Amino acid sequence: MNGAESLVRTLVAGKVDVCFTNPGTSEMHFVSALDRVDGMRCVLGLFEGVVTGAADGYYRMKGTPASTLLHLGPGLGNGIANLHNAKKASSGIVNIVGQHATYHIEHNAPLTSDIEGLARPVSAWVRTSPNAKSVARDGAAAIAAASAAPGQIATLILPADTAWNEADGFAEVGEISQRAALSGTAVDNAAKILKSGEPTLILMSHRALREDGLALAAQISGKTGAKVMAQGSNPRMARGAGRYSIDRVPYVVDLAVNTLKDFRHIILVEAVEPVAFFAYPDKPSLLKADGAKVHSLCEIGGDCIGSLQALADAVGAKPSDAKPQQHAEIVKPTGALTHASIAAAIAAAIPENAIVVDEAVTTGRAFFAPTAGAKPHDWLQNMGGSIGYGTPVATGAAVACPDRRVIALEGDGSAMYTLQSLWTQAREQLDITTVIFANRTYEILKGEFTNVQAGSPGKKAVDMLNLDRPALDWVSLAKGMGVPGVSVSNAEDFHKELANSVKTPGPRLIEVLM
Amino acid sequence: MNGAESLVRTLVAGKVDVCFTNPGTSEMHFVSALDRVDGMRCVLGLFEGVVTGAADGYYRMKGTPASTLLHLGPGLGNGIANLHNAKKASSGIVNIVGQHATYHIEHNAPLTSDIEGLARPVSAWVRTSPNAKSVARDGAAAIAAASAAPGQIATLILPADTAWNEADGFAEVGEISQRAALSGTAVDNAAKILKSGEPTLILMSHRALREDGLALAAQISGKTGAKVMAQGSNPRMARGAGRYSIDRVPYVVDLAVNTLKDFRHIILVEAVEPVAFFAYPDKPSLLKADGAKVHSLCEIGGDCIGSLQALADAVGAKPSDAKPQQHAEIVKPTGALTHASIAAAIAAAIPENAIVVDEAVTTGRAFFAPTAGAKPHDWLQNMGGSIGYGTPVATGAAVACPDRRVIALEGDGSAMYTLQSLWTQAREQLDITTVIFANRTYEILKGEFTNVQAGSPGKKAVDMLNLDRPALDWVSLAKGMGVPGVSVSNAEDFHKELANSVKTPGPRLIEVLM
Repeated sequence: MNGAESLVRTLVAGKVDVCFTNPGTSEMHFVSALDRVDGMRCVLGLFEGVVTGAADGYYRMKGTPASTLLHLGPGLGNGIANLHNAKKASSGIVNIVGQHATYHIEHNAPLTSDIEGLARPVSAWVRTSPNAKSVARDGAAAIAAASAAPGQIATLILPADTAWNEADGFAEVGEISQRAALSGTAVDNAAKILKSGEPTLILMSHRALREDGLALAAQISGKTGAKVMAQGSNPRMARGAGRYSIDRVPYVVDLAVNTLKDFRHIILVEAVEPVAFFAYPDKPSLLKADGAKVHSLCEIGGDCIGSLQALADAVGAKPSDAKPQQHAEIVKPTGALTHASIAAAIAAAIPENAIVVDEAVTTGRAFFAPTAGAKPHDWLQNMGGSIGYGTPVATGAAVACPDRRVIALEGDGSAMYTLQSLWTQAREQLDITTVIFANRTYEILKGEFTNVQAGSPGKKAVDMLNLDRPALDWVSLAKGMGVPGVSVSNAEDFHKELANSVKTPGPRLIEVLM
Repeated sequence: MNGAESLVRTLVAGKVDVCFTNPGTSEMHFVSALDRVDGMRCVLGLFEGVVTGAADGYYRMKGTPASTLLHLGPGLGNGIANLHNAKKASSGIVNIVGQHATYHIEHNAPLTSDIEGLARPVSAWVRTSPNAKSVARDGAAAIAAASAAPGQIATLILPADTAWNEADGFAEVGEISQRAALSGTAVDNAAKILKSGEPTLILMSHRALREDGLALAAQISGKTGAKVMAQGSNPRMARGAGRYSIDRVPYVVDLAVNTLKDFRHIILVEAVEPVAFFAYPDKPSLLKADGAKVHSLCEIGGDCIGSLQALADAVGAKPSDAKPQQHAEIVKPTGALTHASIAAAIAAAIPENAIVVDEAVTTGRAFFAPTAGAKPHDWLQNMGGSIGYGTPVATGAAVACPDRRVIALEGDGSAMYTLQSLWTQAREQLDITTVIFANRTYEILKGEFTNVQAGSPGKKAVDMLNLDRPALDWVSLAKGMGVPGVSVSNAEDFHKELANSVKTPGPRLIEVLM
């Protein structure tokens, strides 16, 4: 057995049995090993940002890491933006990057580059395997690192000769770092604050936003009057009828400051202190009220459910203190496409147990509240702010959850970065509806232009913000990659196409002409 | 004047008057300054790999740097693969990357990352400007660094507050490091070798492959009997009737070893010692014959023309010793699409003074020899080996040379990485013909699979190498981005469409169904 086969066997034994890949010459022995090792599903992407984003989406839904297979430094480079987003989402990924044979690196061939240097800013763990006999052990260590709570990016660099030389066999994954135990002191402190009656916000994210965490927070809120909110962006949030609906901290600084102005305490549950997405002249970076105190109930990767349960017990909160979200019967919208009619169409069409990937940027700001009473679903967001995360994450989520419909809500500007996702969706016949909100502009930047006090954009500046010359034709782009598409320009048609798509197996694209 | 305006004025004053851009919030003041400063042409790309690749192509044809404008670490990340290629091509780029405001970085907002860490592996010069008053000076230093012979990537990181705070004005570019003077010792040594009569190869690349360098090398060859060749890949090579035609070192190791086996000396002229693109089991990394000696006449970035002239003088070579390439009248091909008929169609259709960007990978290996006698043209190649360089480089070359037709020869696999280039080509109405050789496979990897001794790919391995499920429809992809396209399946139609396209202003795509 060669090193590549020892690695594939180690991955499969370690339950890392999906590999999102865009391989090259230096990865051919890994690809060859797929023919000899059962149990590894390889999913090809035609651009590495699709590969790394899919691994992010997979982890968010599956809770265990997938692997990637990338081609040397530039292949890693193409995957960096979505590795950045995955890192900020605390997604676990076994990120495998091919390298030249160890003895070949010194010759500075065209593809030679500093792979470790490129990997470090987006990885919690980086290792170059030194020889074939170490590959299985290093692979097992990468799985352990990627799986460490709450999830990390572990980059394993695989020189070609470590893949083709003789190895000893697979390696077993050692101990995986689990979620840190709850802190009694933190629970006591939080209980004391809640009992004080001072205005308090419980700010949640990450694992705390699953159904169980939301239920516990709702009980605590019902008992104590504390407000519960989610971060502006969250890796995954359980929503819809029967769950416990909460708002998010707004993106716009003034709105966020206003939302937070009355809270004297902010208790963080797998969340971070609210900070502005960007800095703006004469606006604060930190969004809390002056003098407000920030407390941690549970760090990211800690035992958030145990902590919330202990806090509920400490304040005497019971399940009956929480009011679950009622299902809202939504009237199917008609007429013009407005933010409201689009949101209603989405809310009415979301099927039971859907996964919604939200990268609609400006158009999408209005979607959250109207969908609160839709059928139960998960809502996934961009954690690193690098647009182009949506269609890859949808791809990986669909691979992780073949029995659930995925709806990717995309801005046209955002979707262009990683449009190659559509081809993988067609190839794997994934049940994904991609909705493109075609406003033909980087609309968010027009607001940001003013927000940074650059005034109003003139002719040349506007030209850098508009995508209308030429207009992108998303139905043709989808057709070019094997995904059937349709263009809609009113609310009835949008709802009808969306509702049909979620009942039809395979991928589909709907271009919403704004 | 704020820092952003001081930078734009510095760029324009320093003759860096083209900016390939994909901006975000932190770059809005730079965009705003475009409305107040004349003389900067901004070209928008919808993906950063288009932006950085276009800057590479621009430098190769113009010889002076363009600037880029990228959005924080992930925006830089998306541009890394083509920065890698540009670095290996010794292209000068003023690579401007936005950053959070200096005081905002510590708050670890979603887009915060280690930008300098990401930039270093692909940059010769990296600097984060500390405040608005330093931006102009740092911009001038970046121009000098990017312009230093033979060309370098200078990454200037621009925190948002350095853009919006008050600055003093523009800065002038200081002394630019010019090409190193020729080495008399190296010339004497090379002359001695050539006079010895021992079998000698003069291996050329970079600036040496312009018309003047090729003419001098041809004279030396005619006088001394030394063979002249080019590297396997070169940033730009003057070819066609009236120039001096030379071969390249083959990509395939066995062919390269065989080509080089008789040479006792290799004299490098802005070239590097021949090394295998990849390592393979039981094949050498270094391709020269055992015992062959490698000498440098001129390092990359040295005075190659002066060195070649001095060498010609030392060996007594005269212009009459060189035989220029004759124009070959090419019979328009008919019948099936074969590597030979495709090459003939290209050779017959290349217009006077065309720029050919070669990223046809496997299909393209047969194109070089048959096009030697075509009309005079420049031939551009991938220097860093990261596929997806072609359509962006074509874009930048067309911006640099609006009076020349660009023909981009693309593999379907390669073109998918950066297909967003087509939109920029449509927007700017650039005179580019993109030819997609649609063999619907990573064909090169099938050979590489065997070359690395992984045997023959089985069912699962083949599935990772084929792009035929679904087949990409390039005419639809082009239509989606505003570029008219056509599909051809025989040699007559291919030639006819190619010949028509080069006479028709604006971009066009031809899908060649292999």
